[in-house]
Amino acid sequence: MKATVTVMLKNGVLDPQGKAIAHALGTLGFDNVNDVRAGKVIELDLNETDAGKAKAQAEDMARKLLANGVIESFRVVVE
Amino acid sequence: MKATVTVMLKNGVLDPQGKAIAHALGTLGFDNVNDVRAGKVIELDLNETDAGKAKAQAEDMARKLLANGVIESFRVVVE
Repeated sequence: MKATVTVMLKNGVLDPQGKAIAHALGTLGFDNVNDVRAGKVIELDLNETDAGKAKAQAEDMARKLLANGVIESFRVVVE
Repeated sequence: MKATVTVMLKNGVLDPQGKAIAHALGTLGFDNVNDVRAGKVIELDLNETDAGKAKAQAEDMARKLLANGVIESFRVVVE
């Protein structure tokens, strides 16, 4: 099964990459951008047929490796 | 409206970050990982109420700044 883990900085944590993108979009003429947040996405191809187990494994991977729980939050979607 | 742009390396383009994550997961005991692809996600808060226009703008931003069309593909979800 395919599990997609999206890792974002928690609200309140400064996001310099997002700020840089917002500024660059402004210089390109996109003037209706209120806010930008940048994050990571990790697509996992798991050798697992049960959706519940796949999601649990992906969440375990996110907690142990993919996300830094101090400053980042994550969500997992299995398809 | 919120638009989420997900940028991934195209199929066939070497993904060293994904390979490194797959290897690290293996050393942590996750032995059922077939493949890992790493990418970026950019969450845009747009000052736009029409979903179609917001999606078109986000796609324009992705083409002009957020994604490198030579090696990366992107998808946009508006919510």
